[in-house]
Amino acid sequence: MIREFCAENFTDIPRAVAAGAERIELCDNLAVGGTTPSFGTIKETADYLKDTKTTLATMIRPRGGDFVYNSVELRIMESDVLKAVEAGTSELVFGALTPENTLDTEVLETLMIASQGLPVTFHMAFDEIADADQPEALETLIELGFDKILMHGNFLDKPINTDKIATLVSQAKNRIQIIAGGGVTAENASNIAAATGSDYVHGTKIVAFD
Amino acid sequence: MIREFCAENFTDIPRAVAAGAERIELCDNLAVGGTTPSFGTIKETADYLKDTKTTLATMIRPRGGDFVYNSVELRIMESDVLKAVEAGTSELVFGALTPENTLDTEVLETLMIASQGLPVTFHMAFDEIADADQPEALETLIELGFDKILMHGNFLDKPINTDKIATLVSQAKNRIQIIAGGGVTAENASNIAAATGSDYVHGTKIVAFD
Repeated sequence: MIREFCAENFTDIPRAVAAGAERIELCDNLAVGGTTPSFGTIKETADYLKDTKTTLATMIRPRGGDFVYNSVELRIMESDVLKAVEAGTSELVFGALTPENTLDTEVLETLMIASQGLPVTFHMAFDEIADADQPEALETLIELGFDKILMHGNFLDKPINTDKIATLVSQAKNRIQIIAGGGVTAENASNIAAATGSDYVHGTKIVAFD
Repeated sequence: MIREFCAENFTDIPRAVAAGAERIELCDNLAVGGTTPSFGTIKETADYLKDTKTTLATMIRPRGGDFVYNSVELRIMESDVLKAVEAGTSELVFGALTPENTLDTEVLETLMIASQGLPVTFHMAFDEIADADQPEALETLIELGFDKILMHGNFLDKPINTDKIATLVSQAKNRIQIIAGGGVTAENASNIAAATGSDYVHGTKIVAFD
């Protein structure tokens, strides 16, 4: 399994790495679902992980709430992508939707260029896309160059929908990886990975430590 | 009055400026009392405020919880001070305490050097200092070069203690400004300013807008 530990700051990262986390998703403000961390937090985390096998993926999200961004917010995100790369992140995490909850390909293309070829995850904004539109959105994300999708397959206060994730994993045929998140823990991760058919699992409790 | 609007992201800043806010304190993650915002958020906010009379003060705090920082956290904060200055902030906001809740002058001196002479506010960590030690801490902050102190004078879930703030305002004799915050709103701000003897007031509702 590839276990992605979702961190709100640097504090728990050494313990998560010691507990075997293969990936860190670095955010701030998990109370609103994760926002872009500070430059210094990204830099110190990247420096710390340099001597480990753990990969750093940095969240780029300028605020909580929806994923429909205006031009100022796009500039904030573009600037933050560039600074996250400068700070030494290995990967990036972002997403953007239109008011109709379809992919905002214009914003995504701009951010992909800023990402300079680093692997990018499209985050849980994917769950906001209508079920019927998700197969096509997955193809579009592959065309745009995304490497992974983080999804729950359901409203976040409902149980994870492993059937829906499994269907998209089958469609993806490894052209893009799907990370299962939302209520996934060290205890249930291997069952969920078996059910989705994807090795990738994500959460704040994805590895066990005190 | 000098009304400092406490912002969690860019979203409400144009409305706060239009409503007359003299200052913006820019944070992320108000759920934990405020953390360092992303580089892009600072930069776009600084660019936006350039054509206004509103001053930008950027929070430098690497996580929620206490104000006792280890060496990694100090490096994060130092790096973030430098980047906030690069992004165009006018002022900075930080604080640091020892495990005994006295000023951590070593950390503060390092961060003051990084601040390159910009005005700095010592944030509500001041309220964690024992009452009997606050008068001396105020003198130390003046010596260290701090420009302002943000305080509530009480536990944050208790009403603001304007008497305590007024005593420190008298002691300060304008050598350092004291900003009253925590439950201060557009409605009660002028009464609180009258009671503390300080023009400076702070909060997420310090100016009224829809």
